[in-house]
Amino acid sequence: MIAALKRCVGNDAVLYRHEDLLAYECDAYTLKKVVPRAVVFPRSTEETAEVVRLLSKRGIPFIPRGAGTGLSGGATPTGGEVIISLARMNRLLQVDLLNRRAVVQPGYINLHLTEAVADRGYYYAPDPSSQQACTIGGNVGENAGGAHCLKYGVTTNHVLGLTMVLPDGQIVQLGGLPDEPGYDLVGLVVGSEGTMGIVTEITVRLEKKPEGVRTVLAMFDEVSEASEAVSDIIAAGILPAALEMMDNLAIEAVEKGTFPVGYPRDLGAVLLIEVDGITEGLDEQIERIVEVCRKHGVREVRAASSEEERKSWWNNRKTAFGAVGTISPDYLVQDGVIPRSRLPEVLSRIEKISHEKGVRIANVFHAGDGNLHPLIMFDARIPGEEERAVQAGSEILQVCAEVGGSITGEHGVGLEKREEMRYLFSEKEIAVQTAIREVFNPRNLCNPGKIFPSPARCAEMKRQPKGIDTEKALDALY
Amino acid sequence: MIAALKRCVGNDAVLYRHEDLLAYECDAYTLKKVVPRAVVFPRSTEETAEVVRLLSKRGIPFIPRGAGTGLSGGATPTGGEVIISLARMNRLLQVDLLNRRAVVQPGYINLHLTEAVADRGYYYAPDPSSQQACTIGGNVGENAGGAHCLKYGVTTNHVLGLTMVLPDGQIVQLGGLPDEPGYDLVGLVVGSEGTMGIVTEITVRLEKKPEGVRTVLAMFDEVSEASEAVSDIIAAGILPAALEMMDNLAIEAVEKGTFPVGYPRDLGAVLLIEVDGITEGLDEQIERIVEVCRKHGVREVRAASSEEERKSWWNNRKTAFGAVGTISPDYLVQDGVIPRSRLPEVLSRIEKISHEKGVRIANVFHAGDGNLHPLIMFDARIPGEEERAVQAGSEILQVCAEVGGSITGEHGVGLEKREEMRYLFSEKEIAVQTAIREVFNPRNLCNPGKIFPSPARCAEMKRQPKGIDTEKALDALY
Repeated sequence: MIAALKRCVGNDAVLYRHEDLLAYECDAYTLKKVVPRAVVFPRSTEETAEVVRLLSKRGIPFIPRGAGTGLSGGATPTGGEVIISLARMNRLLQVDLLNRRAVVQPGYINLHLTEAVADRGYYYAPDPSSQQACTIGGNVGENAGGAHCLKYGVTTNHVLGLTMVLPDGQIVQLGGLPDEPGYDLVGLVVGSEGTMGIVTEITVRLEKKPEGVRTVLAMFDEVSEASEAVSDIIAAGILPAALEMMDNLAIEAVEKGTFPVGYPRDLGAVLLIEVDGITEGLDEQIERIVEVCRKHGVREVRAASSEEERKSWWNNRKTAFGAVGTISPDYLVQDGVIPRSRLPEVLSRIEKISHEKGVRIANVFHAGDGNLHPLIMFDARIPGEEERAVQAGSEILQVCAEVGGSITGEHGVGLEKREEMRYLFSEKEIAVQTAIREVFNPRNLCNPGKIFPSPARCAEMKRQPKGIDTEKALDALY
Repeated sequence: MIAALKRCVGNDAVLYRHEDLLAYECDAYTLKKVVPRAVVFPRSTEETAEVVRLLSKRGIPFIPRGAGTGLSGGATPTGGEVIISLARMNRLLQVDLLNRRAVVQPGYINLHLTEAVADRGYYYAPDPSSQQACTIGGNVGENAGGAHCLKYGVTTNHVLGLTMVLPDGQIVQLGGLPDEPGYDLVGLVVGSEGTMGIVTEITVRLEKKPEGVRTVLAMFDEVSEASEAVSDIIAAGILPAALEMMDNLAIEAVEKGTFPVGYPRDLGAVLLIEVDGITEGLDEQIERIVEVCRKHGVREVRAASSEEERKSWWNNRKTAFGAVGTISPDYLVQDGVIPRSRLPEVLSRIEKISHEKGVRIANVFHAGDGNLHPLIMFDARIPGEEERAVQAGSEILQVCAEVGGSITGEHGVGLEKREEMRYLFSEKEIAVQTAIREVFNPRNLCNPGKIFPSPARCAEMKRQPKGIDTEKALDALY
């Protein structure tokens, strides 16, 4: 098999020795690790298709992988898979500024696109914290978000078209037209976590860089005051470009990280608020935001006096996850979503979970979106602590689901949250989703064992290997 | 069958006499007419499900219908269908301003939602020209747009969740959560033109009414100057809430309509431009827009001096389709999309088609989106003229497809443009889409004969009546 793969992609583009494969036993979700069967590095759509055809013919499952920065185990093997790394498919294929679009290969790094068009006044809007490392292909798989999604939307709002290799090796074009008629298959594939095929080219929308930007820090004694300010800013009809929150423990962490801002150590919470657009009116928007913060007892408001200062604040915020490593030997990042109005209530329930499980929890939020990132700290050397941290995470997600929220805002379900899908979906709702997957991926060779909870998986395994009778599948479930 | 339907919905909620059925032989696309088998008017999700189960059991096809304002024949029978009218499911079920959402039944009229929340400072953004009559259920079916979609997006960007009756009568909930994990089935169903099931409840996003709005008319001698101004406004990084264009013939029509503005009769084109948002900065945005218009030789710019004047301009614009009836006995509305940058070229090709076919064509555009609405005038009493008008429409769509655009921006494919789908999609791309439909609608009982071109239909008819083997279907096509 290795020899056949080498014939597809070249001798230097296949890893198969155990020591080489170890780096691919997981992505940035590190609680489950399985060494893949091999790793291949195609350079083009055609090479990818050839690899997939080869694997498909032999019934060998496979996993697309970007930069491996995913936080839910979407690129982690479950046993026996070949990883198809898109790392060498890292080219910017086309830039069309007149129609504001670019075509990239999936291994192209998110931030590189903005850098490539910045001098012409454009940028690529979705900005995950990992944007210096993560790939646009990975972003498509996970429908990645970022701090500026409040105003600009997530990856799916910026993807116009896809070239995809289906799990049988056929190449299809999806979308790429303005207002494409028929079903929205691009929207369906974005966020499908590699379970429908391997995306090999992506047409994305470019945005004109806003003329002006204003950034302020609003520091509060109490996290509840900050939460109420968030709700009121949105209720006032202001749509900030970003509206981020960190609580006391998160502030402690980032202040020990690479980019300290000098936050007072006794803060309950800080809001990092940014507005952008046409220069005129920005100052007035900030004034109104500050007014709302005052109403909620803000202790101090600081405006960025230079682009440099603004960047340092963002660097501080974007290193929050990593910085937690400076105050705890190990930590888990969770990713839940709640209606903004439930923020104060959910925070106190997170605090309760923290006490019950005996694990400290720092909170970083895309507050404007109601997207929480609890950072659950533990010490893996202490028996039982990792388990309690995992339980705390799962309980937090249950709270999110209970208040009408979601178990993931931007990190995906992957391996990690398959069981938590039950908090949101009935068996039959999951069945509709798996039936959709069958259309693209009937033998479940492409990233098996992701997204859907295990009983659904068992049911799949029982069915005939050659495709599925959709109606029978639906009949069984309704 | 009629008796059984009456048992489901009551005696007064079933039409079956030929004279009663005539009103349902088509929607606002009037070139094809087929009388339905019956029309039923359920009042709830449960009644809808009961009707569908009854029809499904007997293998009788059915069609969901809103207000019948659709322009592509999406609610027109093809032969033997029962129409399920949602006209009595016209209630606003819930308003949650804190989380900015409302739940409506599908027969609820678009404009009524804005009216219901206006005094609290909110509105529902998608605003098709027919918004006084069209229903939100119909908007979901067609993924309807409107003049303000340039800034605010189309229906799919405003739908958060759906309750749907599947074609076998089962009820499913799709979406409704913030950032729902798994596949985006809401996005898949929105715009599926009633081919996946019957939507019976819709959760939509409400928007805060912008604090300020500024509206100007920019009148040009030449349509090409106006087109270039459109491109340059967008290129300047300004995102107007609306950017509408009418050409000379369209202006002639609207000036004879119910809401004349008093446009000079020799204008080449008029732009209706609106910016909205926080009050501060709006005047400056308008100044910059006017500057761009001046660069392109604008003859006159007029700013709305009152809300009343602004409304009168919009009324004028929104009656454009109907007003064409004042200058021509019959007309067809087309709906194509092109990259903004190709506007001048496409306009001259439309003019050429108009001369070749001997039919006058007025042009109304959502210019900012590149969404064209050629209004093709004809006299049905003159033999051959209707055919030439239809051909002209089809040729215009071919031009749109050639320049990288689309055959529909917001009116849907319906019955009208099934064959034109070939301009955009290969057989295998259409097959992926029909395979997706099979998941929801395996026996093709729900709105058959819509969206997909006829050979695909024939293939469907040949397959076994009880569902489809998806893999086999895909095998046959790839």
